[in-house]
Amino acid sequence: MSMGKPMANYAAAKRVGDFVFMSGVVALDPATRRAVAGYDDIPDIARTAIQGLGYATGQLSVDVFEAPIVAQSWFVLERIRTLAVEYGGTMENVVKLVQYFRHLHHYAPYNRVRGLFYPGEPPVSTVVEVSRFLPGDEVLVEVEATMYLPQG
Amino acid sequence: MSMGKPMANYAAAKRVGDFVFMSGVVALDPATRRAVAGYDDIPDIARTAIQGLGYATGQLSVDVFEAPIVAQSWFVLERIRTLAVEYGGTMENVVKLVQYFRHLHHYAPYNRVRGLFYPGEPPVSTVVEVSRFLPGDEVLVEVEATMYLPQG
Amino acid sequence: MSMGKPMANYAAAKRVGDFVFMSGVVALDPATRRAVAGYDDIPDIARTAIQGLGYATGQLSVDVFEAPIVAQSWFVLERIRTLAVEYGGTMENVVKLVQYFRHLHHYAPYNRVRGLFYPGEPPVSTVVEVSRFLPGDEVLVEVEATMYLPQG
Amino acid sequence: MSMGKPMANYAAAKRVGDFVFMSGVVALDPATRRAVAGYDDIPDIARTAIQGLGYATGQLSVDVFEAPIVAQSWFVLERIRTLAVEYGGTMENVVKLVQYFRHLHHYAPYNRVRGLFYPGEPPVSTVVEVSRFLPGDEVLVEVEATMYLPQG
Amino acid sequence: MSMGKPMANYAAAKRVGDFVFMSGVVALDPATRRAVAGYDDIPDIARTAIQGLGYATGQLSVDVFEAPIVAQSWFVLERIRTLAVEYGGTMENVVKLVQYFRHLHHYAPYNRVRGLFYPGEPPVSTVVEVSRFLPGDEVLVEVEATMYLPQG
Amino acid sequence: MSMGKPMANYAAAKRVGDFVFMSGVVALDPATRRAVAGYDDIPDIARTAIQGLGYATGQLSVDVFEAPIVAQSWFVLERIRTLAVEYGGTMENVVKLVQYFRHLHHYAPYNRVRGLFYPGEPPVSTVVEVSRFLPGDEVLVEVEATMYLPQG
Amino acid sequence: MSMGKPMANYAAAKRVGDFVFMSGVVALDPATRRAVAGYDDIPDIARTAIQGLGYATGQLSVDVFEAPIVAQSWFVLERIRTLAVEYGGTMENVVKLVQYFRHLHHYAPYNRVRGLFYPGEPPVSTVVEVSRFLPGDEVLVEVEATMYLPQG
Amino acid sequence: MSMGKPMANYAAAKRVGDFVFMSGVVALDPATRRAVAGYDDIPDIARTAIQGLGYATGQLSVDVFEAPIVAQSWFVLERIRTLAVEYGGTMENVVKLVQYFRHLHHYAPYNRVRGLFYPGEPPVSTVVEVSRFLPGDEVLVEVEATMYLPQG
Amino acid sequence: MSMGKPMANYAAAKRVGDFVFMSGVVALDPATRRAVAGYDDIPDIARTAIQGLGYATGQLSVDVFEAPIVAQSWFVLERIRTLAVEYGGTMENVVKLVQYFRHLHHYAPYNRVRGLFYPGEPPVSTVVEVSRFLPGDEVLVEVEATMYLPQG
Amino acid sequence: MSMGKPMANYAAAKRVGDFVFMSGVVALDPATRRAVAGYDDIPDIARTAIQGLGYATGQLSVDVFEAPIVAQSWFVLERIRTLAVEYGGTMENVVKLVQYFRHLHHYAPYNRVRGLFYPGEPPVSTVVEVSRFLPGDEVLVEVEATMYLPQG
Amino acid sequence: MSMGKPMANYAAAKRVGDFVFMSGVVALDPATRRAVAGYDDIPDIARTAIQGLGYATGQLSVDVFEAPIVAQSWFVLERIRTLAVEYGGTMENVVKLVQYFRHLHHYAPYNRVRGLFYPGEPPVSTVVEVSRFLPGDEVLVEVEATMYLPQG
Amino acid sequence: MSMGKPMANYAAAKRVGDFVFMSGVVALDPATRRAVAGYDDIPDIARTAIQGLGYATGQLSVDVFEAPIVAQSWFVLERIRTLAVEYGGTMENVVKLVQYFRHLHHYAPYNRVRGLFYPGEPPVSTVVEVSRFLPGDEVLVEVEATMYLPQG
Repeated sequence: MSMGKPMANYAAAKRVGDFVFMSGVVALDPATRRAVAGYDDIPDIARTAIQGLGYATGQLSVDVFEAPIVAQSWFVLERIRTLAVEYGGTMENVVKLVQYFRHLHHYAPYNRVRGLFYPGEPPVSTVVEVSRFLPGDEVLVEVEATMYLPQG
Repeated sequence: MSMGKPMANYAAAKRVGDFVFMSGVVALDPATRRAVAGYDDIPDIARTAIQGLGYATGQLSVDVFEAPIVAQSWFVLERIRTLAVEYGGTMENVVKLVQYFRHLHHYAPYNRVRGLFYPGEPPVSTVVEVSRFLPGDEVLVEVEATMYLPQG
Repeated sequence: MSMGKPMANYAAAKRVGDFVFMSGVVALDPATRRAVAGYDDIPDIARTAIQGLGYATGQLSVDVFEAPIVAQSWFVLERIRTLAVEYGGTMENVVKLVQYFRHLHHYAPYNRVRGLFYPGEPPVSTVVEVSRFLPGDEVLVEVEATMYLPQG
Repeated sequence: MSMGKPMANYAAAKRVGDFVFMSGVVALDPATRRAVAGYDDIPDIARTAIQGLGYATGQLSVDVFEAPIVAQSWFVLERIRTLAVEYGGTMENVVKLVQYFRHLHHYAPYNRVRGLFYPGEPPVSTVVEVSRFLPGDEVLVEVEATMYLPQG
Repeated sequence: MSMGKPMANYAAAKRVGDFVFMSGVVALDPATRRAVAGYDDIPDIARTAIQGLGYATGQLSVDVFEAPIVAQSWFVLERIRTLAVEYGGTMENVVKLVQYFRHLHHYAPYNRVRGLFYPGEPPVSTVVEVSRFLPGDEVLVEVEATMYLPQG
Repeated sequence: MSMGKPMANYAAAKRVGDFVFMSGVVALDPATRRAVAGYDDIPDIARTAIQGLGYATGQLSVDVFEAPIVAQSWFVLERIRTLAVEYGGTMENVVKLVQYFRHLHHYAPYNRVRGLFYPGEPPVSTVVEVSRFLPGDEVLVEVEATMYLPQG
Repeated sequence: MSMGKPMANYAAAKRVGDFVFMSGVVALDPATRRAVAGYDDIPDIARTAIQGLGYATGQLSVDVFEAPIVAQSWFVLERIRTLAVEYGGTMENVVKLVQYFRHLHHYAPYNRVRGLFYPGEPPVSTVVEVSRFLPGDEVLVEVEATMYLPQG
Repeated sequence: MSMGKPMANYAAAKRVGDFVFMSGVVALDPATRRAVAGYDDIPDIARTAIQGLGYATGQLSVDVFEAPIVAQSWFVLERIRTLAVEYGGTMENVVKLVQYFRHLHHYAPYNRVRGLFYPGEPPVSTVVEVSRFLPGDEVLVEVEATMYLPQG
Repeated sequence: MSMGKPMANYAAAKRVGDFVFMSGVVALDPATRRAVAGYDDIPDIARTAIQGLGYATGQLSVDVFEAPIVAQSWFVLERIRTLAVEYGGTMENVVKLVQYFRHLHHYAPYNRVRGLFYPGEPPVSTVVEVSRFLPGDEVLVEVEATMYLPQG
Repeated sequence: MSMGKPMANYAAAKRVGDFVFMSGVVALDPATRRAVAGYDDIPDIARTAIQGLGYATGQLSVDVFEAPIVAQSWFVLERIRTLAVEYGGTMENVVKLVQYFRHLHHYAPYNRVRGLFYPGEPPVSTVVEVSRFLPGDEVLVEVEATMYLPQG
Repeated sequence: MSMGKPMANYAAAKRVGDFVFMSGVVALDPATRRAVAGYDDIPDIARTAIQGLGYATGQLSVDVFEAPIVAQSWFVLERIRTLAVEYGGTMENVVKLVQYFRHLHHYAPYNRVRGLFYPGEPPVSTVVEVSRFLPGDEVLVEVEATMYLPQG
Repeated sequence: MSMGKPMANYAAAKRVGDFVFMSGVVALDPATRRAVAGYDDIPDIARTAIQGLGYATGQLSVDVFEAPIVAQSWFVLERIRTLAVEYGGTMENVVKLVQYFRHLHHYAPYNRVRGLFYPGEPPVSTVVEVSRFLPGDEVLVEVEATMYLPQG
């Protein structure tokens, strides 16, 4: 996991040779130190993009089940994109994703959100359902990214 | 996961530098779009090799519990072997395997089948039991392979 | 998993290019072929270091719940350190850890023990809770390490 | 429940005064006598409409979790629409729906599909999660409709 | 629910316009204030009719599993028939039934018993499995009936 | 379900002929979009009436288990009363209630609260325990009301 | 536990110095040797007092969930009062109660009943939810009382 | 249970002869009427003392599992200490503790915190794991204390 | 809990005024630091006494279910008797027992063993079934004793 | 188990002295190697006989719960009858049946079907509910028969 | 199962050659058609014999857990003895017992009771724990006996 | 069950006429009185035979799941063979086996081991999965054998 304000005492990412390894990322809001819970926890521009996918309908009974995973998916991938930029790359340089879910049916909305970050083909990808993530049950997805960025 | 006909919209494998990363592979039959269920779903030559290990006995009451994991193990490793060949390598170049199981006692038959692909020492290996895989409960094993193939 | 006397028939570690990949490590005592169960299964010097963290109190009712994860954490990280040394490196060269737990609340004691091996910032880190490990339920943590050690 | 070929021996609908009461409808394919399982069990025109909602993506890993409820939702509402027509009305005359689900998070996709049948405001609506439906576990939604059609 | 001696403080039925709405009925014996448990709790004439369906065999090991639902089904429908008569109608005027079960496999015997009350086609019908009924776990079925009886 | 600010996109109620059908009502606070949780979420006048029943004692250990169902019961019935008034009627015109609970022992406090709305005999009534309601687990009761209000 | 006719072979109470210790009391009817089940198992005067609290309504659907704990609460506290009197004291001398429940939400009705025995402030009090009591599952509460009665 | 603002209507403590009996204490914050959840709910001086034990690390992933029991342990024992002082004694006069936990592995951190209150030998002690406490699941420990304070 | 070699850092017993309070006792063998498991863990003389009750039959299939609770019961009560003697009393001075079990059907054999220590009437007694004891699941019974021993 | 095409490698039956012992029989269709699932898996003549018992109604909602056990019961007993004939006997020579069920309420329909094979008194009979049968969960009943057929 | 008044329509026992096969016997009281529940359901002489084993103590808290299995064991074995006598033999001729239990720890008391019927060595014996017996959950043991009684 | 040193007080086997009935056999090591746990608990010659089946690989991660059932299968069948020899027969005279398993997937390895004892066709065979065996959970299989050995 890695956040703006680190959730733990390890590195968010590290360059070794031509690679940048990233720690597993979860959607923890640095301000509240709580997991992202819904559309209010992401910026307007993200919400607009997500509405283009048919989510964030404004109807409580529809959003209540979809908002947590949709918003967390956006948050996690945006965090990876930010880290990629910090190290001088883009999402195209992120060549491998290991994606852990608490509930595998969350893959469908996650996959739509990932399409916003990878308009073309997504990178090499592994998907497994596991039991839980730090810091607790409300975290629904964790993504570990590997970036390839040959040294100039 | 990666299949002949892709199960999802991401890359089955990708070369970066001296490495080829592969997506996690599960035993999904591209023709039926269903998980490999038994010995009828693998070629004759595979079945013969597997019989050499003592499996595929022809007795329903014995095969019923062993066939799914044995056939999936062969299918997954054969898929990795095929990918390795497509990228110009062999199983010897596949230097690391992360192996996820739904039931850890499946490691025993998997391990025997892997011996068919690695007559010598198998590569670096991680084994964990997780909850589930895409696309559903009948998938018993997922393997994520890393190939090392220095550019000539 | 990798032990002094191998628990299974695969490689404990392998150098490929500038990297050394290690198999997932669990705390299996090579002498007894059983999982490390407590403070009696680790050397005196380890126990002393652990007491510096407030563990290994000598009170049965306190140690009974803490000893298994604390002792396994030490055992696993020490095994990784030994492998790193065998390949010519140190813990500083171990740049990435994937850490699987059976019970996520074990992260707290594990994290304190890891501080003994990384007095500075720990490496890139992924943490997930999964179902089980080889060879059985008494194994509480598995760590997969990646070492970066450029060839001279 | 009511099907083309009745699943049971009771009336699919009955006019009494200005009302037409309908039996609870489930998505049972009259040809196979099995529950509707996915997009192959509904007509092309329905699939096209559903794709307009972002479903029926053609990616197995996405569709596998969404197809059963999406296709059943369409099937059930289409059956109600057909019954309404048989009695001389339209969906606008169907003024009340009691909607039972096995899993409440299915309300979100159901609600999108219902929008295809009610481009304007849907009728009076009750939603509850219950345990099971006839004829078995694969049935995910049952809808009981009431039509108001004053006698000329 | 409605009984001879009311189980609760609400109306057993009420005429509004051309309709008579009935409260949900469960098989509560007014004498004992306990749920109907078997063939001893229904009149001889009912038992004879039920034997014509193959039930009430007199063999304990057969009756033990069938008696509660068969006897409750009869009791509930007879209560509805009595209410219909009190309001000047017959079972033919009861045009809609919502039938709740604790165990859906009870629909089969219930359906046979209902045939005694509706020799022709039964009315519009909804069937769902729910969790429990008042006053407790031994109640297996609840039926809510709607009668149509145009005012002369 | 129906709220001041609609929770979903369907009608709260609809007149057809001499009847007004209402959507199932749950206790969702329109301001917070959360389920009513206790006595702070209902007006003073309601709390006073409820104290007359022996609830809202001010002792945390007593109120903690009773407040959610008592407050939701009041909220739901008040909402039905308001809708009845909007359509020109009173609680006496609400002639039928279908009452769904998550826990059947909540019927006892609900019944006491209903007595505040129906000082005389309550209307025709059906009670079942089901699994869950929209929008989530904290909703304990849903009531679907039917009003009879002959057109002048 | 202690009853008129002892349920077991130990003392119901014992004076030591200024204290009278009492064995844990459960509501076991000495006549039937069964747990108190409802309002029929307590005297008329108790039932009248309990009705003053709003319980014992006479409606089966209300009483069915409340009667066991309300009646047992009265029975247990009355037994303690009787023992206090036998030793020459009153409820005011019973200065400490340890109260075990099988279901913690029973504290609310228990607390109201206790108010009948302690019109002023109740004594020092401990409340915990445990698993079960002798002689079986139908026992819902056990109270262990300590009396202080200085020797003259 | 006993709080500054009483959670219930019974006495927090009572002197009888040379003893002061205390009601079972849980960590309920009198301001919020909620259970103590973490280090923010206890005073700075307590947090500092707790950091001396190695807790309150400031790392979210470590604190998230330890904070509730550590903070509640401090809160409960501090409340007992305050009561002891109110009655003219100190922790040395508190000669017996009955300690109930929801999860027995919480004994280890509780024991460390208790050491802050009893630098010497703790008093006579009973420890059991039970099911739950008032007012709900978030309460992890309850302690019932007995003080011996001979009257001058 | 209290053992020859203390399991924890608190007092096994303490005299205050005319009372000796004892910590809760469990059957932990001081030599092995494990729970007493069977008849081999108690002295010959105890085994002989127990055989007089019909236990310790020497048949594995009989003893396997009875030995743990029978042997632990003896061990715990003997430990209490020893403590009583250390403080100058006998079992007759132990006037109150709070007895916690993990499985309530263990009360029957426990009660027979207690008869060996109390040939006459046992003391005041409370019995509850709780979840677990320190140091773990194999501990089946814990007894907290209070001794009254007036100072000469 | 024994089938036309043996499911396993052991004898279907064996004569020893005056007895013929039969292996436990389950309803496995030799053609499909799957468990008998319903009325389509048994011959017309069997279906007709079963309809005489009131089963095989043609209504899906009735048959869906009854067909598997009714058809398997017929299949298993017919297989035993065939074996009896092969060895020169009839059902009258089958003097003892041990009948294992997965769900004991299946005894009722099984018993009716058995009446078709034993118009008079059935043989000596043992009935137990066990966990599972080979080859899997869909097998609902297994019968082990003993035939007595004195050698001429 | 076999009773004085047969519980089902099959033979209680049957002689074939030198053997008498008996149906599985359960403890069903022919008078009440209910399972034997305790010491009141067996004759005085049986109770006296059982008291010689240390059971039937008269203490409710002891007997409550032991009475059902002890009384059923006696009832079942007495029924077998009676059948043996009816066929001209004694318990010595009953040479084989298959004993099914719902809870394996019931073997200990069963074994003591069996000693009353077999003062010498019991016959050949099989013991397994299964799920349930006819006619329901309160039946704890079923015994199937085989008698060898050579024809004169 | 029957062992060298009897586990219980009944006969291991008994000849009656031309038959030898054997008690159900489980794999209990007479020396340790514990269930056979692995390959160390069986003789070298057995281990060698088992290695010929592909088991006893020496790899801990493979053997850990297979060893208990493989070794118990050998032990149980060898015990039956020994008993057969004691009574003057061979495995060919053992004509019927009832085989109970705790986990039905253990049938596959059991079946291979049985092939060592029956190189030709195995005898008449019944297989069921039950709940447990004496003396406890670690016993995985129980076999009841019948031998036919005509008297000369």
